[in-house]
Amino acid sequence: MKSELTALLATRREGYGMPRAFYNTDALYPEEVARIWQGGWLFAGFTIEIPKPGDYFTLNVDNTPVLVMRDDAGDVRAFHNVCRHRGTMLCRQESGHVRAIICPYHSWTYSRQGDLIACHGMQEELDKSKLGLKPIHTEVVAGLIYVSLSNSPPAFAPLRDEFGPAAKPQGFDRAKIAKIIDYEVPSNWKLVWENNRECFHCVRCHPQYFKANYDVYEEEFASDAVKKQMAASLARTQSKWAAQGIEITHTHGGLATFPDPDRNRWFAADRTMLAEGFDTESMDGKRVAPLMGDYADQDVGVLRMRSMPNFWVHASCDHAVAARLLPAGPRMTRVRGYWLVKEDAVEGKDYDLEKMLPFWHLTNEQDWDICKWQQKGVDSIGYEPGPLSTRKEYNVDAFIRWYLQEMRGGGVAAPQLRIA
Amino acid sequence: MKSELTALLATRREGYGMPRAFYNTDALYPEEVARIWQGGWLFAGFTIEIPKPGDYFTLNVDNTPVLVMRDDAGDVRAFHNVCRHRGTMLCRQESGHVRAIICPYHSWTYSRQGDLIACHGMQEELDKSKLGLKPIHTEVVAGLIYVSLSNSPPAFAPLRDEFGPAAKPQGFDRAKIAKIIDYEVPSNWKLVWENNRECFHCVRCHPQYFKANYDVYEEEFASDAVKKQMAASLARTQSKWAAQGIEITHTHGGLATFPDPDRNRWFAADRTMLAEGFDTESMDGKRVAPLMGDYADQDVGVLRMRSMPNFWVHASCDHAVAARLLPAGPRMTRVRGYWLVKEDAVEGKDYDLEKMLPFWHLTNEQDWDICKWQQKGVDSIGYEPGPLSTRKEYNVDAFIRWYLQEMRGGGVAAPQLRIA
Amino acid sequence: MKSELTALLATRREGYGMPRAFYNTDALYPEEVARIWQGGWLFAGFTIEIPKPGDYFTLNVDNTPVLVMRDDAGDVRAFHNVCRHRGTMLCRQESGHVRAIICPYHSWTYSRQGDLIACHGMQEELDKSKLGLKPIHTEVVAGLIYVSLSNSPPAFAPLRDEFGPAAKPQGFDRAKIAKIIDYEVPSNWKLVWENNRECFHCVRCHPQYFKANYDVYEEEFASDAVKKQMAASLARTQSKWAAQGIEITHTHGGLATFPDPDRNRWFAADRTMLAEGFDTESMDGKRVAPLMGDYADQDVGVLRMRSMPNFWVHASCDHAVAARLLPAGPRMTRVRGYWLVKEDAVEGKDYDLEKMLPFWHLTNEQDWDICKWQQKGVDSIGYEPGPLSTRKEYNVDAFIRWYLQEMRGGGVAAPQLRIA
Repeated sequence: MKSELTALLATRREGYGMPRAFYNTDALYPEEVARIWQGGWLFAGFTIEIPKPGDYFTLNVDNTPVLVMRDDAGDVRAFHNVCRHRGTMLCRQESGHVRAIICPYHSWTYSRQGDLIACHGMQEELDKSKLGLKPIHTEVVAGLIYVSLSNSPPAFAPLRDEFGPAAKPQGFDRAKIAKIIDYEVPSNWKLVWENNRECFHCVRCHPQYFKANYDVYEEEFASDAVKKQMAASLARTQSKWAAQGIEITHTHGGLATFPDPDRNRWFAADRTMLAEGFDTESMDGKRVAPLMGDYADQDVGVLRMRSMPNFWVHASCDHAVAARLLPAGPRMTRVRGYWLVKEDAVEGKDYDLEKMLPFWHLTNEQDWDICKWQQKGVDSIGYEPGPLSTRKEYNVDAFIRWYLQEMRGGGVAAPQLRIA
Repeated sequence: MKSELTALLATRREGYGMPRAFYNTDALYPEEVARIWQGGWLFAGFTIEIPKPGDYFTLNVDNTPVLVMRDDAGDVRAFHNVCRHRGTMLCRQESGHVRAIICPYHSWTYSRQGDLIACHGMQEELDKSKLGLKPIHTEVVAGLIYVSLSNSPPAFAPLRDEFGPAAKPQGFDRAKIAKIIDYEVPSNWKLVWENNRECFHCVRCHPQYFKANYDVYEEEFASDAVKKQMAASLARTQSKWAAQGIEITHTHGGLATFPDPDRNRWFAADRTMLAEGFDTESMDGKRVAPLMGDYADQDVGVLRMRSMPNFWVHASCDHAVAARLLPAGPRMTRVRGYWLVKEDAVEGKDYDLEKMLPFWHLTNEQDWDICKWQQKGVDSIGYEPGPLSTRKEYNVDAFIRWYLQEMRGGGVAAPQLRIA
Repeated sequence: MKSELTALLATRREGYGMPRAFYNTDALYPEEVARIWQGGWLFAGFTIEIPKPGDYFTLNVDNTPVLVMRDDAGDVRAFHNVCRHRGTMLCRQESGHVRAIICPYHSWTYSRQGDLIACHGMQEELDKSKLGLKPIHTEVVAGLIYVSLSNSPPAFAPLRDEFGPAAKPQGFDRAKIAKIIDYEVPSNWKLVWENNRECFHCVRCHPQYFKANYDVYEEEFASDAVKKQMAASLARTQSKWAAQGIEITHTHGGLATFPDPDRNRWFAADRTMLAEGFDTESMDGKRVAPLMGDYADQDVGVLRMRSMPNFWVHASCDHAVAARLLPAGPRMTRVRGYWLVKEDAVEGKDYDLEKMLPFWHLTNEQDWDICKWQQKGVDSIGYEPGPLSTRKEYNVDAFIRWYLQEMRGGGVAAPQLRIA
């Protein structure tokens, strides 16, 4: 680790936000990409996006194109989406289906397992076995696909152990993608996370969101009336859930603690109550689609899962809304929003996008707007990190501590080329 | 000061323009921002833009957002336009009115004096008195608002002593903004000034401008006929002006000397004659609005004021046209043009924008076009600084010497972060 | 030469493509501009573009504007297109005609020979003889104009000796420009060349192109049927060409070797056969314009010439298609395509652009698309240079070796300014 980076990381004052240089320094960004985005596990997408062998989707981690494909055996694999010959990008659509991966430049042909199977015109003595597509570590849990660009990724088992049981009843692996919306957020990716890690802003910024959840009601902010509601909500549904083997794990107001760098928790799943009158996270609280997964009843609260550095999902009884973050420069984050419903739900009959989308699409757009203006603010020489609320921003603090820990120890330094 | 900067500053040959590296070097620009734009006094706008307590306007100095507001006592104040909590930009409109400044993120609330008056959700023990908006040095003179981002700005009194009396009769502080036009000039800010500091180009580039003024008639370039006109113009109006306590200070042709680094004059005000047949700076020389300020008569010539690094104004008997420069990168300058008239003048009745705007709007656009093409030229390896006309470009030379002096001694070095 | 550059250049593995850093490193690009683009000879355009004294065209080599003009004596000259006074860009159109070059800023006036002939307003003692436009080395051969930004360009005579006789019968110097198309290729300039230096991709990418030529039929890839066609084609036309003094120099399939760094051949001209049924490089093989130059017969195959780093042309009996490359950043190349016909050919009567353009306009667009996707691929951390086909990519290897040789020894290092 270089001394300038070490010095920068030491400038954060405990209990405060991060200094300006963390959010707009051209030289820091590649270090983050190398240590965090090429170091850890990234949510890539859902298995239901690629049901059949040869189905694929693509994504870009910073400027590294990744191909995620179902192979002939039905397993999900990921590869670097570049030809081993001259480096041309192979699959250029966001998603599609192929019998084999044929490079559009010189027709080098790879199997769905990534093996180089033909390269007519090359010298005969070429050892094709050494020229297969470069594999990327891939893991699947409960319908979620994770990839890691690292040569030696961190252990995935802990996430699997937590997400697997938690996500099973939701049935992500037998769902349907009702809608994908891609957002460009003109903001550093860390601002997007800091925004996500507190609901301090919800009352002002998300009038529709904060009514559906108890997020803004940390113990000391909950009135007796609210506490009564929470208790009722908990009591009413807890018994049903127990019968279904579904556990309430977050039983009070306010956000559950996440991440937790001290316990190396870069992922978390929990289930919590929805507010009085909300059967699902919709504008009016009414269901917007048929029940998903194993749910026999709408009274299942909301399942929440997230993993650093790029995933979160809120899953109600009838639909789930996920977000996947990808960095695209020091001041640009690309977010993909996913809306999932029951596998066999039919648009126009079983659900209506005009009713399903607004709750989270509004929330998303409200948040990206915040991030945009915060970026403009932290770019200023007048910005000085302020104190975080110990009552409402404990998770922003946790995020910053997680980030600093990753940057100090994690990953591998970015390769640097400086000619001067 | 770093040795590379010192070395660069030494490359300018006396009597010549500045070498290429001064106009397009990414690494030089932040040094200029730090030393000049964050070091000196900047014209921000007019007091008449914010007549009532709570009225505000905003501007960006490079990427530092500044808020200028009239406080409850009626005084003009400037603040860093970022929240002391998480750094979000606060006031996002170009101008507006607020009862209090409420951060759109977490509702931290500041008085119009900049004091933090509410931050619900934060820990009780927070010392709000230390979390007011960061003030920016502000001065007002004759209706002009100046700000300085420096912690220890240069003395403002000398400017006040000169601008105050000179500007008083024009009545900038009891005028009306008839029009604002914002220009993006794809050019280094120094090229904009070099262009402004000579009228050598006026004959070719500003056919409408050079006829109204004696700028192109330095002593040796004035024919006997022109000299006679100047003398007549001077004689005719000088007596009237004396009676009004208004002094002609620039009595000959050619531009008045400005800036003058040897005498530390980064500001200057003077009054000079308009050409025969011009009552004001309009296309046909005819008045385009009612008399402004204290003027009892149209025969007041033209008042000119400018201050480094970002302001100039030409004020005729009936209207005034000002320019405010702000840098936005090594190759981008944002210029705001202001047209001012008498306070109670009514558009369509007392003045007509179609008659008032062209003279300076044309001049502006002609100049920005020059700057654009000059930028393309000085970017070339074929560019070599040429000799400046000792007869017509003495002020370009003066500007360069001022700039070099500021860069050598002034301000504070830009904070640099290099991780490699 | 700096040690980092030396180290980078050493990272290329023999027989493989170049590593990632060669294609997207901001710091490498100015070194390439300095050593290659400001070091060697660049094709600038055709003499027929500027038939009369005072005719000119302009181009930009990276960000250096160049003016090419026919002088009063009828000779072609090139100058830096910036004023010696303040550096303003002088001629701003892509082409035009002037009696004298008058700077639009202060009217400094240069003759068509580049001499400063007027600068009214400057001090009398100025030595105008030292302030003429900065000349750029210029050479003309067979109607092609070459310029070099170097102070001591490499010898031009070898190119002249080869291109002169080869190009004479085509009559580039007495042709007409039927069409110019400018392309922006979002790709490093070296990817454009690597694409150009092999026809391995032609079968897949250029269905119209590969049928017209024997480029894809290297000895070992030609079937007996194809070999028979080639022999027939050669025999049929060779006798005619001999009579005309036109020589077939490339008599077999596959691309002729070029460049050849071992023999310092950065240019090459040869003539080869067109495929059976192709009289010219058109979609259906049929002629699309009257015979050009000295040709008495359509059976002249195709003349091909190219020179590093920025020119190639394919000239058939009836028209010629050329390409001029100019770099515009690490990831941007500007390509101008030229279509030439006989001097007195009349559009709509003698030729029809709808028939003439598609063959090469398609080929161009197909290639730029390839380059775009290859750039996205080589930007990836997953890109690793692959083996080049010894049978089909010998010229890609040759190009890379030429490039490395130039970068190691050629030109002058870019001036670097780093302030930190």
